[in-house]
Amino acid sequence: MPHFDLPLAELRRYLPERDEPADYDAFWDRTLSEQRAHATSPVFEEVDAGYSQLVTEDVTFAGFDGQPVKAWLLRPRHVRGPLPTVITYIGYGGGRGLLGEWTGLPSAGFAHFVMDLRGQGSGHRTGDTGDGPLTGPHHGGFLTLGIADPDTYYYRRLFMDAVHAVEAAQQHPAVDPARIVLSGGSQGGGITLAAAALTQRVNDTPPVGAIVDVPFLAHVRHATEIVATAPYSEIVNYLGTRRNDVEAVFRTLSYFDGVNFAARSTMPAMFSVGLLDDVCPPSCVFAAHNHYAGPARMKVYPYNGHEQGGAFQDVEHLAFIRELIGD
Amino acid sequence: MPHFDLPLAELRRYLPERDEPADYDAFWDRTLSEQRAHATSPVFEEVDAGYSQLVTEDVTFAGFDGQPVKAWLLRPRHVRGPLPTVITYIGYGGGRGLLGEWTGLPSAGFAHFVMDLRGQGSGHRTGDTGDGPLTGPHHGGFLTLGIADPDTYYYRRLFMDAVHAVEAAQQHPAVDPARIVLSGGSQGGGITLAAAALTQRVNDTPPVGAIVDVPFLAHVRHATEIVATAPYSEIVNYLGTRRNDVEAVFRTLSYFDGVNFAARSTMPAMFSVGLLDDVCPPSCVFAAHNHYAGPARMKVYPYNGHEQGGAFQDVEHLAFIRELIGD
Amino acid sequence: MPHFDLPLAELRRYLPERDEPADYDAFWDRTLSEQRAHATSPVFEEVDAGYSQLVTEDVTFAGFDGQPVKAWLLRPRHVRGPLPTVITYIGYGGGRGLLGEWTGLPSAGFAHFVMDLRGQGSGHRTGDTGDGPLTGPHHGGFLTLGIADPDTYYYRRLFMDAVHAVEAAQQHPAVDPARIVLSGGSQGGGITLAAAALTQRVNDTPPVGAIVDVPFLAHVRHATEIVATAPYSEIVNYLGTRRNDVEAVFRTLSYFDGVNFAARSTMPAMFSVGLLDDVCPPSCVFAAHNHYAGPARMKVYPYNGHEQGGAFQDVEHLAFIRELIGD
Amino acid sequence: MPHFDLPLAELRRYLPERDEPADYDAFWDRTLSEQRAHATSPVFEEVDAGYSQLVTEDVTFAGFDGQPVKAWLLRPRHVRGPLPTVITYIGYGGGRGLLGEWTGLPSAGFAHFVMDLRGQGSGHRTGDTGDGPLTGPHHGGFLTLGIADPDTYYYRRLFMDAVHAVEAAQQHPAVDPARIVLSGGSQGGGITLAAAALTQRVNDTPPVGAIVDVPFLAHVRHATEIVATAPYSEIVNYLGTRRNDVEAVFRTLSYFDGVNFAARSTMPAMFSVGLLDDVCPPSCVFAAHNHYAGPARMKVYPYNGHEQGGAFQDVEHLAFIRELIGD
Amino acid sequence: MPHFDLPLAELRRYLPERDEPADYDAFWDRTLSEQRAHATSPVFEEVDAGYSQLVTEDVTFAGFDGQPVKAWLLRPRHVRGPLPTVITYIGYGGGRGLLGEWTGLPSAGFAHFVMDLRGQGSGHRTGDTGDGPLTGPHHGGFLTLGIADPDTYYYRRLFMDAVHAVEAAQQHPAVDPARIVLSGGSQGGGITLAAAALTQRVNDTPPVGAIVDVPFLAHVRHATEIVATAPYSEIVNYLGTRRNDVEAVFRTLSYFDGVNFAARSTMPAMFSVGLLDDVCPPSCVFAAHNHYAGPARMKVYPYNGHEQGGAFQDVEHLAFIRELIGD
Amino acid sequence: MPHFDLPLAELRRYLPERDEPADYDAFWDRTLSEQRAHATSPVFEEVDAGYSQLVTEDVTFAGFDGQPVKAWLLRPRHVRGPLPTVITYIGYGGGRGLLGEWTGLPSAGFAHFVMDLRGQGSGHRTGDTGDGPLTGPHHGGFLTLGIADPDTYYYRRLFMDAVHAVEAAQQHPAVDPARIVLSGGSQGGGITLAAAALTQRVNDTPPVGAIVDVPFLAHVRHATEIVATAPYSEIVNYLGTRRNDVEAVFRTLSYFDGVNFAARSTMPAMFSVGLLDDVCPPSCVFAAHNHYAGPARMKVYPYNGHEQGGAFQDVEHLAFIRELIGD
Repeated sequence: MPHFDLPLAELRRYLPERDEPADYDAFWDRTLSEQRAHATSPVFEEVDAGYSQLVTEDVTFAGFDGQPVKAWLLRPRHVRGPLPTVITYIGYGGGRGLLGEWTGLPSAGFAHFVMDLRGQGSGHRTGDTGDGPLTGPHHGGFLTLGIADPDTYYYRRLFMDAVHAVEAAQQHPAVDPARIVLSGGSQGGGITLAAAALTQRVNDTPPVGAIVDVPFLAHVRHATEIVATAPYSEIVNYLGTRRNDVEAVFRTLSYFDGVNFAARSTMPAMFSVGLLDDVCPPSCVFAAHNHYAGPARMKVYPYNGHEQGGAFQDVEHLAFIRELIGD
Repeated sequence: MPHFDLPLAELRRYLPERDEPADYDAFWDRTLSEQRAHATSPVFEEVDAGYSQLVTEDVTFAGFDGQPVKAWLLRPRHVRGPLPTVITYIGYGGGRGLLGEWTGLPSAGFAHFVMDLRGQGSGHRTGDTGDGPLTGPHHGGFLTLGIADPDTYYYRRLFMDAVHAVEAAQQHPAVDPARIVLSGGSQGGGITLAAAALTQRVNDTPPVGAIVDVPFLAHVRHATEIVATAPYSEIVNYLGTRRNDVEAVFRTLSYFDGVNFAARSTMPAMFSVGLLDDVCPPSCVFAAHNHYAGPARMKVYPYNGHEQGGAFQDVEHLAFIRELIGD
Repeated sequence: MPHFDLPLAELRRYLPERDEPADYDAFWDRTLSEQRAHATSPVFEEVDAGYSQLVTEDVTFAGFDGQPVKAWLLRPRHVRGPLPTVITYIGYGGGRGLLGEWTGLPSAGFAHFVMDLRGQGSGHRTGDTGDGPLTGPHHGGFLTLGIADPDTYYYRRLFMDAVHAVEAAQQHPAVDPARIVLSGGSQGGGITLAAAALTQRVNDTPPVGAIVDVPFLAHVRHATEIVATAPYSEIVNYLGTRRNDVEAVFRTLSYFDGVNFAARSTMPAMFSVGLLDDVCPPSCVFAAHNHYAGPARMKVYPYNGHEQGGAFQDVEHLAFIRELIGD
Repeated sequence: MPHFDLPLAELRRYLPERDEPADYDAFWDRTLSEQRAHATSPVFEEVDAGYSQLVTEDVTFAGFDGQPVKAWLLRPRHVRGPLPTVITYIGYGGGRGLLGEWTGLPSAGFAHFVMDLRGQGSGHRTGDTGDGPLTGPHHGGFLTLGIADPDTYYYRRLFMDAVHAVEAAQQHPAVDPARIVLSGGSQGGGITLAAAALTQRVNDTPPVGAIVDVPFLAHVRHATEIVATAPYSEIVNYLGTRRNDVEAVFRTLSYFDGVNFAARSTMPAMFSVGLLDDVCPPSCVFAAHNHYAGPARMKVYPYNGHEQGGAFQDVEHLAFIRELIGD
Repeated sequence: MPHFDLPLAELRRYLPERDEPADYDAFWDRTLSEQRAHATSPVFEEVDAGYSQLVTEDVTFAGFDGQPVKAWLLRPRHVRGPLPTVITYIGYGGGRGLLGEWTGLPSAGFAHFVMDLRGQGSGHRTGDTGDGPLTGPHHGGFLTLGIADPDTYYYRRLFMDAVHAVEAAQQHPAVDPARIVLSGGSQGGGITLAAAALTQRVNDTPPVGAIVDVPFLAHVRHATEIVATAPYSEIVNYLGTRRNDVEAVFRTLSYFDGVNFAARSTMPAMFSVGLLDDVCPPSCVFAAHNHYAGPARMKVYPYNGHEQGGAFQDVEHLAFIRELIGD
Repeated sequence: MPHFDLPLAELRRYLPERDEPADYDAFWDRTLSEQRAHATSPVFEEVDAGYSQLVTEDVTFAGFDGQPVKAWLLRPRHVRGPLPTVITYIGYGGGRGLLGEWTGLPSAGFAHFVMDLRGQGSGHRTGDTGDGPLTGPHHGGFLTLGIADPDTYYYRRLFMDAVHAVEAAQQHPAVDPARIVLSGGSQGGGITLAAAALTQRVNDTPPVGAIVDVPFLAHVRHATEIVATAPYSEIVNYLGTRRNDVEAVFRTLSYFDGVNFAARSTMPAMFSVGLLDDVCPPSCVFAAHNHYAGPARMKVYPYNGHEQGGAFQDVEHLAFIRELIGD
């Protein structure tokens, strides 16, 4: 059934109760304060990939526990900075990819910082960042990696990388630190929600807005009950085997659920949703949007699934970014 | 079975007999000479889609029977022309899309002319060109449209559009008419093969090279025997109903088969193939490559299907274009 | 889930609001009056297909814009006319097929007029009628052909053919013009609804009844929200690419929706529905039935899908036809 | 892969060794002689199903062990007999269906005897014959029913019914006993091969020809190795569980394999094959055809599966029947 | 949708009306009294399958109409009896399997009696019991075997076997007849419900409890409306062909529906359910549980399908058995 | 196609060239000698899971880098040791499971040591061993974990655990260190091949035989070319994204390929294969068997897939074990 979730009118007012552990804020305060120690100066190195109209740089910055995380920084060669800058987080399984995948925003006059994802980068876009010294990019499984405890959960590391990425970008002379926009789709949307909420706690010049396309990792328990697709299926399969771990797993996930980040984030946000999306189902996307603490809008694609607006949504992105930076 | 086709070593020497009607050249000479009458001046109109670093133009040129066909022309704002120019033909079901989908080549310093496809543009990329006055973009079915006769076959009209597109591009002052490269993947690869061979017959400054990724419409009868996927399935389904039309259908197709165009095309060409490709199967891609009359190379992706090299293949494109234009 | 739609009790009282444009009647009045000009004398030609107990004739009549449309007329050789006559419209993708597919009704003593479908006839039954001079039968896509405007929409042409077919049949000496029954399943059911309502506007001796099996093209927008199967998927895919065209597309479709024809048709009608039908979902079939302006009955098949009653429903057909013609 | 089996040229000369038990002829002689005792006079009862141009009769005859087996007999009302008569055996899971499914051959001037299948008749066509007193029509499983021993195997009973059906038909005054043609598709084709070979052993006026469309139960072991579809999958699943029974099962099947019947049948035969048929794969159909002892021809449908020629094949049937009966 | 059925809270209070024929009790009283005549002494024969720590016996007892039914009896070699004993009924398509599949309960100190299923034993576990003399184990179809009448329905025979199995076990000297526990999953759960209710009517020392995992054959009509999977699909397919038999089929089934047995069974019972189970859907399992006449508990597996708790549920079994036998 | 791989006769003589790096032996010698340092005394702790006839112990031993690895040890309570002992390695995604899953071999009089798999244990059997301190059991991805370098590859750690497991078992007083048999199916078969070859290099009393059911990780590159199923698909997907890593990945894999271990292993081995197995395809299983350096036999299941012989193969296991230990 294409429209398998709630009707649109009900989605618009869907405001499920949030499941939040008592020590939620303490957990993140502790994590952020522990990780402040690891901030180091990012390294930017120009690379020539043949895009003569752009300046393209390979970035290495200190992520969780100071582990090296890669990124790309692209910007127009013929515009003088400091430039408004978009920071992009990638969807599940992907990495920063190749430079040629990111020519759109620089062609529109912006700097674009694309963060690589530790251990990912082998599922749809290539990547270059390991998850600590143990492993480089590898196939799937991230959703249950270390899930027995919030402290060892993979997404704790990844979200810290995302917070550090903002600071790394802000240190580049061509980047205007006061005009940063966060963005991401699917898992990238989930990271954006986390980065928006967490950055606000520690960054003096937090990003000015967030683009959250079909966010993953939001209203997770509900998602596992209404869709059987990857990657939520990783949790379903895990719990289908480890039948006694249900409550422990959802306790860990409650620290990382986008709904709880949304309820704490105040910068303007634009969401998108595909009403046929069986990867990040509409009710989960609306749950995050409807709980969002700041001004938020929703772009609805009634006949799209997880691909949502595609190039049509890129048009929305440009308009929203220009609105945010007062261009 | 991932490697469902011949082993790579056999693919490299696979040279099936071509099925070519006696009046093949006469058919195309007649078609080309009839259609010369319809050439008109293309109209170029600048549009602002927010890509400040590029000049973006909406193009309308006279296609088959003088019917209006749309295109995009994009080029770097800060480079002086005339520029080497890539003409791109789109895959099955797609149209020229939105401007934001084409920022890569202009960011590399080239002009990029993206031809819309009559009647297509509703399957994966949007389009704006009707198939004559009767219909705008619509869903599928192109492969059997008018197939009872080569003269009414849809691809006769489309291939003439493709030939006219080259001339339209050559008339733009920023385009260097002597440094045109044709390109396309899947159906776009099939159009590229046709445009390369047909342009050579009538154009005084034909393109300098062709990029032919996983071409569709090549070695077609064989394809219908080894893959059941769309869009070749349109022929299979058609003949599964119209059981008496088998020979008539393949007679029509023989005028449009990429293998026959390849055998007549002499400009340097770069092909690509995915060994898991069940849409445009490897033996069909190699059949076109191995029959190619000019210098040709093949980029093999052993663990990819129809998506072939993706962004990795874009890197190959840049290198090949630069090699062709002596950059 | 087999019973994926509403429970039967709710289906029986399902009466959704109809979406009807303000100029609906004007559109059809204009169309009908324009097309009256094209009526010409049909040509009937006896053919020998080996069915010695029947008289079998090949029919050519003037359809939309006077374009030639084919049909079969079969009748029992040993019964004297004028005969009660059934006119049948075919399901999506099919044509009039071969004569051997239509021996049932003549064996029961009726004449049977089977209209070919322009451009169709390659999907499940063969056909012999082009969609204008441009194309013969071809693969799929009819649902979005010319959909940008009601005037260019494919179904405007097809429904006019269907109206003309009634008049063509009525001109045959063996046909009793006052005892015509319309019939069709799936798309044929949708055409039946259209032909019933439109014929009433212009034909002095309209048909005496209509058999509407699992009608397609009824309550269309709802259908696209609850089933993902072909052929409604053509609309879903179209709008999934052409994301800005949603409202325009459903505006065009509102002129052709069976629910709006049903609300204007007064001849007795028998519907059928399969509660497992995911091609023409039960709620759409009931929407047409429940809005039907004349006397209507519904035959429910609780454990069938789109195939509904099959040979069991043929038994119902015979009984209903005999009831209508007072046999 | 559509053409998953051998290339057509190899199929035409495919002549695999037959696997035939030493006591094959003894087994059938014993079976036939035991069963002769059960022949009783068939009962014919006219029924009115509304087909006024035909005479339609319900038939009950004594099958295996004298158990009652149903059939239909249809013939044109306005033709004087005795008539050439076609006896049809049904495909897997089906029964004699409803009378309205069989109007074609009587409309062409022939009598048509349609035998019901014991225990089947609930899979695609309805039936009215039990498999002995224990059970009426039921769902699937026939292929392994009693398979531990040739004497208890379901198909021993069914093939005896088929032999008796010929004699039952020959006793009707409107049937010309010297102009009988056997026919059937899929399982019906397998029964036709059996009935042709077995009838020759015991019937003084055996049928004059056989129509064998895409026969099932031919070259069975090979079939289980190259297709995974129902109903051959019943054997695969059975042996997948009962791993020690492989040789015993194929020993039983060797008494019933169409290849062995074909090698003994001498009446003229017309076969058909769909090159995409993954239910009764082409090499199995050709194995039966190529081993056929009498004159045989093959109608090849290159783009069809198990549905083979459909209405196109009905045209071939009429021509072949007329040829056989010298019409 | 993983949780395709009602939400858990609604499942817990789901108490649908039962469909029970007026002569339900009379039917079973008659059946039981007729079948008492056939009780014979079971035969126990020790077999050596290499499990030196166990005593393993092959059992033959008189089932329905006195037909021989096989079973296994396993018990610990080093424990003195009479022992508490578990009787297990197998899931759809399976038989008693091999001895090595049943070492768990004897290793825990219990005797284990595993009843073979007539005619089954070729779908997932092997079996050795025919369905009367006509057939040994065969592929599927049991759900519609003889379904036209409750007296000929396959499950009447099978449920009588199950009742006799209890008595057969009780006659073994190592079995404590007063400490029998019934158990089964899926079809085995359905048989357990039947055996529990029927045994109570005739056995002086009925079993002390029942383990009913994801029972099949409960709330059957509802099941056919919400799941399309095997084996309920056998009914759906049967009725999809035999469209006039719907009410007759459900009348027969009402004598065998687990919901009606549950409403009459008073021994303590433990049920289990997988909320993702699309073979025996949760609402059907809860319908049986919620109607259960005795004390009943439900073990819920929220992220499992038909496999439910697997080895985790074995742990529950051991605990429940010990609780029942006061160990 | 069920028999999608080579015909059985060709499989029996299939002996593909092995791909072995020059420093293969050096790599394993270095690894083994480095890891000798980490051997510590295993801890055995009796646990009561209700299996009164067995002694069941929880084991913790030092695996790769001395990291703790769990295991179960089960043995018959009423047999005096030291006992012949089977060490079992688990299939992909699984862990040591629950004790109730392993009652078969102890019931036959053997001790059974079941090694847990680091990081696995959430896919089909539960587990309790992390992959180092970073993560507990998690979902999939093991096949590409650290694959960039043989030194960081996951299977280097896992195979070292397997070698240490043998030594741990040998330290238990109830285990006869001179009568150890290794066993495993699928990934467990791959680990068995590795443990057999590697143990021989360092263990003074190496195991006396190996049971290798449908081994995974054998002839890997070939496997990725002929099957698209999980878990080999992890490599296919990885290389489909990381297109430049093909040779590097297969270089790493060559150190771990079962074919290379087989060529070095001399203890008697029994293999099994399912000819329909599309997870561990027959040609890969035969490649390992045919290259095996010691005496080897193959049990062929012609109508089974990856489940191979199931309980039938357990019977073979018992016989082979007894043969090996001279029982």
